Amino acid sequence: MSSSLEGSTLFDLAAYLKHQKSVVEKRLEQVLSTYPQDSRVISAVKYSLMSGGKRIRPILCIAASEAVAVEEDFFEDVLTCASALEMIHTYSLIHDDLPAMDNDGLRRGKPTCHVAFDDATAILAGDALLTMAFETLSSHLVQGGNEPGRWLEIINLISRASGVRGMVEGQMLDIFSEGVSLTPEALENMHRLKTGAIIEASVCSGAILARGRVKHIKSLKHFARHIGLAFQVIDDILNVEGDPKLLGKATGTDSQRNKNTYPSLLGLNESVTFAEKLVGTALQALSDFDKKADPLRAIARYIIDRKK
Amino acid sequence: MSSSLEGSTLFDLAAYLKHQKSVVEKRLEQVLSTYPQDSRVISAVKYSLMSGGKRIRPILCIAASEAVAVEEDFFEDVLTCASALEMIHTYSLIHDDLPAMDNDGLRRGKPTCHVAFDDATAILAGDALLTMAFETLSSHLVQGGNEPGRWLEIINLISRASGVRGMVEGQMLDIFSEGVSLTPEALENMHRLKTGAIIEASVCSGAILARGRVKHIKSLKHFARHIGLAFQVIDDILNVEGDPKLLGKATGTDSQRNKNTYPSLLGLNESVTFAEKLVGTALQALSDFDKKADPLRAIARYIIDRKK
Repeated sequence: MSSSLEGSTLFDLAAYLKHQKSVVEKRLEQVLSTYPQDSRVISAVKYSLMSGGKRIRPILCIAASEAVAVEEDFFEDVLTCASALEMIHTYSLIHDDLPAMDNDGLRRGKPTCHVAFDDATAILAGDALLTMAFETLSSHLVQGGNEPGRWLEIINLISRASGVRGMVEGQMLDIFSEGVSLTPEALENMHRLKTGAIIEASVCSGAILARGRVKHIKSLKHFARHIGLAFQVIDDILNVEGDPKLLGKATGTDSQRNKNTYPSLLGLNESVTFAEKLVGTALQALSDFDKKADPLRAIARYIIDRKK
Repeated sequence: MSSSLEGSTLFDLAAYLKHQKSVVEKRLEQVLSTYPQDSRVISAVKYSLMSGGKRIRPILCIAASEAVAVEEDFFEDVLTCASALEMIHTYSLIHDDLPAMDNDGLRRGKPTCHVAFDDATAILAGDALLTMAFETLSSHLVQGGNEPGRWLEIINLISRASGVRGMVEGQMLDIFSEGVSLTPEALENMHRLKTGAIIEASVCSGAILARGRVKHIKSLKHFARHIGLAFQVIDDILNVEGDPKLLGKATGTDSQRNKNTYPSLLGLNESVTFAEKLVGTALQALSDFDKKADPLRAIARYIIDRKK
């Protein structure tokens, strides 16, 4: 889809995303290497965690930290947090793909975890990743200069965004609203819980670990809230008109399942307009920030323009 | 079964267990009340969490804290930790009972979570409980006098015991060793991971939060390691000769599934002797402790004598 929000910035987002993705993946591999390599659970965890996602949550965490940073000695901590966020995201994908849930066979162009292994292993791999995230978040007691109290705050923030106050409840609502007509408000609430909460937590945790000022964290939260919803609207649109090859998963599945989506509720054109408006509001929230927030700005635009 | 380890202590274990169980359950209800009450996930969480288990892990946490305590101002913290341990235990039961795992329909005399609700809800309820445990462990920043650093240590200890370094790996080994003959060493390793690790973490976390001395924590770890295994041996025995009515679940299921158990490996009598020996070693580890460790001693004996 085209966007009226194309920036004139010279910032090279493709290079930035590629670099950060490789930094995050290197850290994930490093964490995985500390676990028993002969474990079937770890094989399944590796299979799903290292299958090349966009790493958008950890990259948002890093970009938010850069947007508020005055010193660089926190990067180790931000990367720890970023890797934990990707573990939580991957756990949620593994469980969501299960036959008892969305029953998806393809993810990132590969068989999903329960297809490549089996249901029991996939359930345990998800459980392992969720637990691993909290082990990771509690393992950096001294590094990077953040005090234990700040880590506890991060753990609390992320657990609230992941559980019944966020992602888990969103997935429950998503499953139980199949075939039921939702109001735009109910649809928005579902998405804020299912994907928005953890995107907000990703941005805020990066900013907190980089010791951002309270007013900046507040603006970033506003930013995250709007790009989180925009991300979901575009996801819905791609499920209608995206290219399954580029996406690495089947399209048309939402409508087959009678899922409530923005295109089904607003129509395709209105959905695009809505997403553009959300990204516009998100960019406005960054008006107080200098060019260190350019990666965040570019990511916001990318959300609209992405093809996968 | 009879035991030669009956103590002469006047300590009233039944009253102690009843009291601590009610304290733990009150706290669990209090935590649950802070979540959205109209959530289907929370209904399923409540159903499983408040269905009257023995609460042995949280009670071990409390009893270990009492065994080392010199002050009482930490009790609030210990109870927080104890409640999180029960959440993790309940999550593991809900996921283990799923059709894709052990496929159990009855637990504590009631239909299991996926039978009472459905598979998707049970998966999400387990995910919610695991996440809730870490939210709980990171929510008590100031109360009770423990510093954030000690909480981070507890979160790290419990996450290591719950994930691939402990419980999750144990469950994986358990499922994949059905029908395969294990050596006694492999069986012991599986149980140490599946149930032992979290029992060790329960005892150690209570002692750490009560600011126990390092040598006492070491002894308690030794104690926990032995009662943890004894607990599993007796569980195996009860699956052969226990009363399904008292147990609240079916018996004979291990042998139907060709599970590796102590009775199948050593025979019933040898298994009882082994469990008694383990409890004897556990009690020895407490020889340096005064009468404040009587609840722990009584719990160790109870593990042998229990009928459910």
